[in-house]
Amino acid sequence: MTLTTPFPYKAGPKIKEITVTPIAVVDPPLLNAAGLHAPYALRTIVELVTDDGISGISEIPGNSDIDAALEASKPLLIGRDVFQLHEIRQVLVDHFGTDTAAQRGDAPWDQRKMVHIFSSIEVACLDIIGKVVGRPVVDLLGGKMRDRVPFSAYLFYKYEGAGGKLAFGTDPNAEGWAAARQASALNPAEIVAQAKAMCAEFGFQSIKLKGGVFEPRQEVDAMFALYEAFGPNVPLRIDPNALWKVETAIQYGREMEPILEYLEDPVRGQAAMAEVRKALKTPLATNMCTTSFEDIPNSIAIGSEDIILSDHHFWGGLRASMTLSGICETFGRGLSMHSNSHLGISLAAMVHLGAALPQVPYALDTHYPWQSDEIITAGRFTFEEGAVLVPQEPGLGVELDREALARLHQNYLDCGLKKRDDEPEMQKKQPGWKFQSVRW
Amino acid sequence: MTLTTPFPYKAGPKIKEITVTPIAVVDPPLLNAAGLHAPYALRTIVELVTDDGISGISEIPGNSDIDAALEASKPLLIGRDVFQLHEIRQVLVDHFGTDTAAQRGDAPWDQRKMVHIFSSIEVACLDIIGKVVGRPVVDLLGGKMRDRVPFSAYLFYKYEGAGGKLAFGTDPNAEGWAAARQASALNPAEIVAQAKAMCAEFGFQSIKLKGGVFEPRQEVDAMFALYEAFGPNVPLRIDPNALWKVETAIQYGREMEPILEYLEDPVRGQAAMAEVRKALKTPLATNMCTTSFEDIPNSIAIGSEDIILSDHHFWGGLRASMTLSGICETFGRGLSMHSNSHLGISLAAMVHLGAALPQVPYALDTHYPWQSDEIITAGRFTFEEGAVLVPQEPGLGVELDREALARLHQNYLDCGLKKRDDEPEMQKKQPGWKFQSVRW
Repeated sequence: MTLTTPFPYKAGPKIKEITVTPIAVVDPPLLNAAGLHAPYALRTIVELVTDDGISGISEIPGNSDIDAALEASKPLLIGRDVFQLHEIRQVLVDHFGTDTAAQRGDAPWDQRKMVHIFSSIEVACLDIIGKVVGRPVVDLLGGKMRDRVPFSAYLFYKYEGAGGKLAFGTDPNAEGWAAARQASALNPAEIVAQAKAMCAEFGFQSIKLKGGVFEPRQEVDAMFALYEAFGPNVPLRIDPNALWKVETAIQYGREMEPILEYLEDPVRGQAAMAEVRKALKTPLATNMCTTSFEDIPNSIAIGSEDIILSDHHFWGGLRASMTLSGICETFGRGLSMHSNSHLGISLAAMVHLGAALPQVPYALDTHYPWQSDEIITAGRFTFEEGAVLVPQEPGLGVELDREALARLHQNYLDCGLKKRDDEPEMQKKQPGWKFQSVRW
Repeated sequence: MTLTTPFPYKAGPKIKEITVTPIAVVDPPLLNAAGLHAPYALRTIVELVTDDGISGISEIPGNSDIDAALEASKPLLIGRDVFQLHEIRQVLVDHFGTDTAAQRGDAPWDQRKMVHIFSSIEVACLDIIGKVVGRPVVDLLGGKMRDRVPFSAYLFYKYEGAGGKLAFGTDPNAEGWAAARQASALNPAEIVAQAKAMCAEFGFQSIKLKGGVFEPRQEVDAMFALYEAFGPNVPLRIDPNALWKVETAIQYGREMEPILEYLEDPVRGQAAMAEVRKALKTPLATNMCTTSFEDIPNSIAIGSEDIILSDHHFWGGLRASMTLSGICETFGRGLSMHSNSHLGISLAAMVHLGAALPQVPYALDTHYPWQSDEIITAGRFTFEEGAVLVPQEPGLGVELDREALARLHQNYLDCGLKKRDDEPEMQKKQPGWKFQSVRW
């Protein structure tokens, strides 16, 4: 068949260069089930440049093994058309194999290789495609369902300290949220103070507490203190990061039923989650027991959660996250979003995805208020009433600040960290502290 | 946040005109569970034109109720950006409501309104987006996994006759497949002759028989006759269109186990399918018991089939079909494609989708050999070894032949048919014949 059309086929922009830059960003001493955040959070910035000089960028959690795999993937990717995302994924799978559940690890963050690699390449390709097409990434995902994407306040127990070079020290000149961000939060009253400062700055309309740090009684007391301080119109969540036993989760879950929007990962594994879910009226959410497409069939079979907290870095990109959204819609699961310490490139991608989802019934998680660095030319994103305006510019709508990238890469070289490990950091404060996968 | 970028945002092409044209295409007297094909098969051609003069086209099964709904949807759609597919779907759902299982009906073809409407609009929008972007539709679905998409021979029991104005008459000047297409096929020997003529013309490498016409013994004999004629290297399938009882399906299914690639819809409904599936080693396929996202949860819960035969006209478009593909991959279901009588616009869309799927383990269904009309400027698609080359031109890669469109619309006006109904056609040959949802 010979066809004629007035619209010429455009040879696809082909990947010519791939630059992988690990960076370290200042992170305060936040407590969590796995220990304590180091003074720097690691991220990796990926930049693709096409043969016609278009740049696309992405950001993923930093890990030197994944950085090395990205370096190793360059020969597989150079010369490929950025539109051929299926083919790109296939060559990566053929080379690296598919991830296994064991690679994920017990930590609250995901350590699988393929999903991170493909996410970084896919998002950068979508950034390029958006620029070529003249459309924001949300329009490549089916279009925008909302102009602003709501996020939740994300509270942490923490030691006093600003992170970075100050570590447990503080900057006496800091004001407003920058000052509050340095303060300790080790009991319910300090958690409420943190919440008030964060909500005053960002306007968040819902609140999540990262738990799994203190024995459950104190953390539950903190939730009731938040309820008392913010009243019934501010949805509340707590995330013990799978550290509670089933009976603990049922006991405290029942106590919190009147005040929780949802309970996140109270216990470890799909079977335990399903058991708790049967006993509680409060919806259960997860980013720990159902974290990949391989986990979905058993999740559906046994009913391990009500809400999946997706993360495009862990689910293999933005288009895979849209597929996850379709699965959740089909099976009556809710969908919201998980976060780790991140900067504006990840936030932009999260916002484009959040704007494309058919529904956003729960405000999304973000660690963004805890970071002070930025690597995009426009500076840090602003929040209005807890929401971020969807960028309207082509692609992700953010551009790399190369000076900041160089500076944060120097941080990386200087700090000596190679991957996230919260246990040794915790041992600096509590000698002999050991991670336990189930604690209370 | 103020951003600058060298890539200007392009205001999206907006829908300015929508033209809905019902057409009638010559169709031979093919027998099936619902009766007999009328001398004309109805299709509806949808054309969108944007404010900047770009045309996008699509083709769906013809039905005057759906045509009327499409007309009624115009005020909802005019002025909308073709990239905003989520928004377009939402306004249609808000207006028409979601389809229900009851609307689907008992016939082998689907009669739901929303899925057809959205499919027609989405495919035409993707055609436009592809032209704007300068890329084939397959690249808007994540890119091409293969250059050619394999189809299966689709055999029908039939009365002698060419269809159209000739109806049960034939054209004595016809040659080759055009002659064979007129011949009767009412027994195993004639089915084998039909298969040989069709495979000689199109090069198909696998064969499907539309059953549910004669009592099972004859149809099973036809399958063994095909096996004898084509040997073990040509995969065989039979589709009784849900007309068999469970015990019939198990009896004949076991008999055919050595020769079948898969058994399609032997029985009616997910529960009966699951029962048959437990008794047979042969995989079961369906386009009748699991036909929408609403059907998926129970399909997974009870295991009603191994393979879903999708159809972008019935599943709400090409992107929804990609989501279905993700669901099938997640749950270990196979995915292939269903067909009804259609022309080249539908075929182009099917080929783009087939090229984007991660895997095509089974050659797809198509009625295309039974049609002789065409409405695309390039004329009828050719098949090489049973496969169609993926169009490389921007969009669908096919353009509307306006002269043919006018002629086939005149056919529609002249023939008086308003929707497919095979029962009265059958009664012309067999007075008093009645459709039965389960027959043997």
